[in-house]
Amino acid sequence: MADLLCAEDLVAGSVHDLGSYDVGLEEILQFAAHWDPQVFHVDRAAAESGFFGGVIASGVHTVAIYQRLSVLGAYRHWAVIAGRRVTSEFPAPVRPGTLTGSLTIQQVTPTRTDRSLVTTRGALTGPDDEIVLLITVEAYVRRRLDAPTGS
Amino acid sequence: MADLLCAEDLVAGSVHDLGSYDVGLEEILQFAAHWDPQVFHVDRAAAESGFFGGVIASGVHTVAIYQRLSVLGAYRHWAVIAGRRVTSEFPAPVRPGTLTGSLTIQQVTPTRTDRSLVTTRGALTGPDDEIVLLITVEAYVRRRLDAPTGS
Repeated sequence: MADLLCAEDLVAGSVHDLGSYDVGLEEILQFAAHWDPQVFHVDRAAAESGFFGGVIASGVHTVAIYQRLSVLGAYRHWAVIAGRRVTSEFPAPVRPGTLTGSLTIQQVTPTRTDRSLVTTRGALTGPDDEIVLLITVEAYVRRRLDAPTGS
Repeated sequence: MADLLCAEDLVAGSVHDLGSYDVGLEEILQFAAHWDPQVFHVDRAAAESGFFGGVIASGVHTVAIYQRLSVLGAYRHWAVIAGRRVTSEFPAPVRPGTLTGSLTIQQVTPTRTDRSLVTTRGALTGPDDEIVLLITVEAYVRRRLDAPTGS
């Protein structure tokens, strides 16, 4: 725990580049087959003649990709206790290709002696720089136990 | 498509029992290993000495379980176009055990000639009837193309 960043170390306004994730058609079909078996996620033929002209990724899959990138690029260095609330918007469909993530720390609010509520705003963009996910995550992060301003 | 329910068939206030899903420790560890590798989701020893006294499921995993139940219990019978917005709250941790889901149609609002925005409010409860997920999903559902009140 000694090496993890505590709430006091997190700076509102700071931006974290989360790198990218290549999602293929097979992965999209497989994820959705178990977790979100709607025809436009799992049935190639039906999807091709449907609204989007091809298979699109489940929103849960899209959020999972963002979560992986944000854990590897940010949260694993933070003393996270747990998530509290997540809001996700899907402005454009996700098709096979490369997704790129970023995360901005919006707010760090002490809520108890031992923790702060940290609000982050993140995004994933697709191959044509289109935004495919806008996500707000509220999570509790530990404060330093020896913080002189503990309330 | 002829057998699917259109927006006009969905009744605000109606409640759908979504049945249940058994989630085991191995599945929790495996899901998180790829999608949410935070110590309290993937490291049994660290989790046992940590805040929750044991491994808890990723919030993404919890939402995925709800999505599976809601597709099988409701959405697969609806003419869904795509999801637009999802808000998830995690009032209590998810540990290995049985989760039970329900979904209430909150609002059906025509937005274009061919579609309505359908807002559903769902929940998952754990083995002790504790609420572990509260979720609001906004999705577009087709209206009947022959609807006499098309705008």
